Amino acid sequence: MSAPSLREAAIDLLDEYAARIDDDRLEDWVDLFAEECSYHILPRENHDEGLPLPIMLCPNKNVLRDRIVSLRHANKYNLHYDRHLITGVRARPDGADHVRIEANFAVYQTSLEGESRLFSVGRYRDRARKDGEKLLIVEKLVIIDTFAVPHLIATPL
Amino acid sequence: MSAPSLREAAIDLLDEYAARIDDDRLEDWVDLFAEECSYHILPRENHDEGLPLPIMLCPNKNVLRDRIVSLRHANKYNLHYDRHLITGVRARPDGADHVRIEANFAVYQTSLEGESRLFSVGRYRDRARKDGEKLLIVEKLVIIDTFAVPHLIATPL
Amino acid sequence: MSAPSLREAAIDLLDEYAARIDDDRLEDWVDLFAEECSYHILPRENHDEGLPLPIMLCPNKNVLRDRIVSLRHANKYNLHYDRHLITGVRARPDGADHVRIEANFAVYQTSLEGESRLFSVGRYRDRARKDGEKLLIVEKLVIIDTFAVPHLIATPL
Repeated sequence: MSAPSLREAAIDLLDEYAARIDDDRLEDWVDLFAEECSYHILPRENHDEGLPLPIMLCPNKNVLRDRIVSLRHANKYNLHYDRHLITGVRARPDGADHVRIEANFAVYQTSLEGESRLFSVGRYRDRARKDGEKLLIVEKLVIIDTFAVPHLIATPL
Repeated sequence: MSAPSLREAAIDLLDEYAARIDDDRLEDWVDLFAEECSYHILPRENHDEGLPLPIMLCPNKNVLRDRIVSLRHANKYNLHYDRHLITGVRARPDGADHVRIEANFAVYQTSLEGESRLFSVGRYRDRARKDGEKLLIVEKLVIIDTFAVPHLIATPL
Repeated sequence: MSAPSLREAAIDLLDEYAARIDDDRLEDWVDLFAEECSYHILPRENHDEGLPLPIMLCPNKNVLRDRIVSLRHANKYNLHYDRHLITGVRARPDGADHVRIEANFAVYQTSLEGESRLFSVGRYRDRARKDGEKLLIVEKLVIIDTFAVPHLIATPL
């Protein structure tokens, strides 16, 4: 892929990422990850100080799948709609087959009572693998600007 | 248009859409629509359950024009500034001449007292017609994440 | 530069602009400006009425540098993390060597107590100079939608 098409592919990946969460198609969201993958949520403070204590840690795709199944069956609380705004997508090659991606995000949640509000802001630091013209997520690091998450993180960020 | 230029054209259209509302150039905003067009605002809940009960329904361009005229003459209340953030613009061909566009949005309003706050989040589902190198909106569907609109929708979303 | 690459260059510039502030690399942020440059923050009301009374005025790069040094040494208050979302980046040539750039932005701040909230929304109206494949900021005009800035502007917008 050329440099522009690398950014295009990264934008495509993150746009799909946002759309699948926001449309509540979480099972399809898992398909954006490679079989060998990790998904971490880390407060910025911990990240900056080198304390790798994540709020959430999914060390492989099966844990991600389990999490979605559990969300579907158990989580009757904290029902809401998500809405992601992802901006500033930057991509650079990492060897022949991989890409490093960074982006800023804001996630809004709307409660069933109809209140929309800011839920979380932060940045993504991802590593993806080329898979034809597409990219699959190998490592997803969600660095949130606050350690104080308003309430339980139910759906993925 | 090629696939990349299709996205570029969709981004151009939505960037102009946002700028003309945010700059209070609402008469120019109407020019982004085809003569035969529709503009609907629908709460997500209604949309997902197939209840097509819009909050606002403009079945053609003349109704849009009337609405802007009425806004200019009658609306002395709820004066504010709008600010749109539109992200995740995706475009796909719909036949030879049309394009389907989806995007996420957040709209902020700033009151004359100087308070900026989140007004609405949701997504656009649009259909546009190619018009040379540009696109004209044929159908605009604004799906807002909450049925509870903080106050009267005066300016378009 | 071609029209698409002009927009790409403008997006690259603003993505770097956001990342360097949000990563607290303010000394690197200054490097995005040309030696002869200006940086103004202006409330929208003043801008629209032609009252050029800026909230902040940096008439050249040395003032920007001083400001960052002063921020580093003196500002022990209002510590926070910034997060920029920049969307709707439009670029058009301005003579052979310059580019006019417009964009919308939202800035979120997260306090050390862990609260993330909207800090400011508005638009950028910039002028940049081509410098090889990159752009350097010659004039930065930050037009904020509210004159009422929640608290002291410490870090740049």
